[in-house]
Amino acid sequence: MTNIYSTIQKPTMLLDEVVTKNNIKTVAQKALDGNVLLRPHFKTHQSAAIGEWFREFNINAITVSSVDMAVYFAQYGWDDITIAFPVNLLQLDSINQLADKIDLGLLVESQEIVKKLAQGLEHPVNIWIKIDSGSHRTGLAWQDVDAIKNLVDIINADPNLKLKGLLTHAGITYHVDSPATIKQCYQESIDHMCFIRDELKKAGSQSLKISVGDTPGTMLSESLGDVDEIRPGNFVLFDAMQLSFGSCTAKDIAMVVACPIVAKQPQRSEIIIYGGAIHLSKDTFTENGINKYGLVCRLHDQGWSSPIPGAYVRGLSQEHGMLYLPEEEFDKFNTGDCLGIIPAHSCLVVDLLQEYLTLTGKVIPTVNSEISKSGLI
Amino acid sequence: MTNIYSTIQKPTMLLDEVVTKNNIKTVAQKALDGNVLLRPHFKTHQSAAIGEWFREFNINAITVSSVDMAVYFAQYGWDDITIAFPVNLLQLDSINQLADKIDLGLLVESQEIVKKLAQGLEHPVNIWIKIDSGSHRTGLAWQDVDAIKNLVDIINADPNLKLKGLLTHAGITYHVDSPATIKQCYQESIDHMCFIRDELKKAGSQSLKISVGDTPGTMLSESLGDVDEIRPGNFVLFDAMQLSFGSCTAKDIAMVVACPIVAKQPQRSEIIIYGGAIHLSKDTFTENGINKYGLVCRLHDQGWSSPIPGAYVRGLSQEHGMLYLPEEEFDKFNTGDCLGIIPAHSCLVVDLLQEYLTLTGKVIPTVNSEISKSGLI
Repeated sequence: MTNIYSTIQKPTMLLDEVVTKNNIKTVAQKALDGNVLLRPHFKTHQSAAIGEWFREFNINAITVSSVDMAVYFAQYGWDDITIAFPVNLLQLDSINQLADKIDLGLLVESQEIVKKLAQGLEHPVNIWIKIDSGSHRTGLAWQDVDAIKNLVDIINADPNLKLKGLLTHAGITYHVDSPATIKQCYQESIDHMCFIRDELKKAGSQSLKISVGDTPGTMLSESLGDVDEIRPGNFVLFDAMQLSFGSCTAKDIAMVVACPIVAKQPQRSEIIIYGGAIHLSKDTFTENGINKYGLVCRLHDQGWSSPIPGAYVRGLSQEHGMLYLPEEEFDKFNTGDCLGIIPAHSCLVVDLLQEYLTLTGKVIPTVNSEISKSGLI
Repeated sequence: MTNIYSTIQKPTMLLDEVVTKNNIKTVAQKALDGNVLLRPHFKTHQSAAIGEWFREFNINAITVSSVDMAVYFAQYGWDDITIAFPVNLLQLDSINQLADKIDLGLLVESQEIVKKLAQGLEHPVNIWIKIDSGSHRTGLAWQDVDAIKNLVDIINADPNLKLKGLLTHAGITYHVDSPATIKQCYQESIDHMCFIRDELKKAGSQSLKISVGDTPGTMLSESLGDVDEIRPGNFVLFDAMQLSFGSCTAKDIAMVVACPIVAKQPQRSEIIIYGGAIHLSKDTFTENGINKYGLVCRLHDQGWSSPIPGAYVRGLSQEHGMLYLPEEEFDKFNTGDCLGIIPAHSCLVVDLLQEYLTLTGKVIPTVNSEISKSGLI
């Protein structure tokens, strides 16, 4: 194996290809066993090359979080893409171009949006009604059966809007504190979705699919429930937050950020790394009542160690990361060495760092290397 | 004036050139009046084009936060640059290339780093000893006069290390809660720096300069104190955090992010925008005991309004922003409109969005459009 670490000068995402593929295999098998379609959310890895690794497991349908990401993956041959984000009417031109080429799924949640969308669409799209099953971010409240029925009727009145089903993101599983509660939230969200589906059926609606998805619920629930598809994304890489939920073990973490050590503060047992908010994001998770920006591991020739017990990223400024290390670990590291950071939230780090270095020395770019975020230049 | 808003489809940084130049003018004048050198920190705007606007005010020396940013601004003719970040030994090659071309300033804080740096340097560099004047991020504790004296001796022993002075970042001004306390912290940090300078002088050291810098301290202190240079950066744009400190007024804010409205939640008086953690960062500020990711304003032909009273960004996920608006404002906005977000922390947003749209329709790129963060491709 090449010593890839000798090339690292700046905060760099390291990707373990074997672990990544194993994570994909595990969830693909769980979906197969549960007789549900896995439509993985590609907003986590954001990479065409990693996307290809899903095809071995017969994954042909994907989820993304923006029109740009749909354009990017469509360029790489994905032809069944759901944009799991409210329709952005200002990108109707791009939406029409996509809808002309691929099976495009869009989310709607109000009569206003459905009417504006119907006016602007030039090609058929698949429509999912976004349901708020408890996380209170977007969507029609699951209890509001009349509003949902009305929306179904309006959608069915337009030939370009092909109603597929009901979709929710049980994001509330990210805000509870035990595996048991996560499982309970996941199951409740499914119960709510089934309730609406059954109510609509009673009212004479066509057969509607149910799409759910989040990594904690998918990983921790023994049964995926009476749903048609799941859309988890984070499971491909995992991160410190998922580890804290119990969604994965340390050996399932497929990406860490290698960061140069630039200073040491013995009196506080702190190590300062080149690796700040612009590399690791300001997202945190909570462990033992402490807000942490990430965990710390050692790098070695075959990858990285488990998290160093007691060590964590206690603060971030724009380019600095401040790590606490237990005293017995502190002296093992010097300026000019690299440490591995298991980030709190891998999706945001992928968005920031824009390319991976695999343990065999391959460089894998992401969508951000290819498409400008604001589209001005 | 062109209607620039008609071109916006995605989260876009709007820059008011007039306000930006006025902010530069104000601080340049304050430095002139205080007889201190303004060495502005360019990590906030990160743009060669905006950098040029400083030259009108006779600014020739700058601060940056990374080797890459130094390389970028050196390409645009800046030849006196301090990298206000601990030396990253893994970038010694780039440091040597820079030191060959420009007056390069580096920060050191330990004998270990000074020795390793001296071994690897091929050209002279300016050296600043990083002092921890109270913020406890990096640097030698200001009380530790002996350690500082020892470091001075070691630096003076190497011909490539040209000791310039003592440098601190009174970052503690970001963690206190009133203009009076900010002023007090700024003054205390200067007192600590003067104390060390005087102690070193007594011990026979050469004359050393004092470099300080942070936007709250610079803006709120009537006097800049007995220092040689200041290095504030954020003042060029300001943001909601600075507004909450009292470092600026609403009319001084030079950048907002235009974000498309994608959904409305009347029952919670919430508006959902396309504009999430990957556009606005997860940084927050606190106002009336509430953690806020930003404030909300109206966009109009000549720029934007003051913050809408009571409105704020209450949450962010990867691409979604959840805004609370008072009920009387809620109905004024529709899906497909854009709202302006005054971000909590402008530096991180500039890093994320990578280009500005001025109110006259010019597109201004930043360093991130030109230099890859991890340098792999």
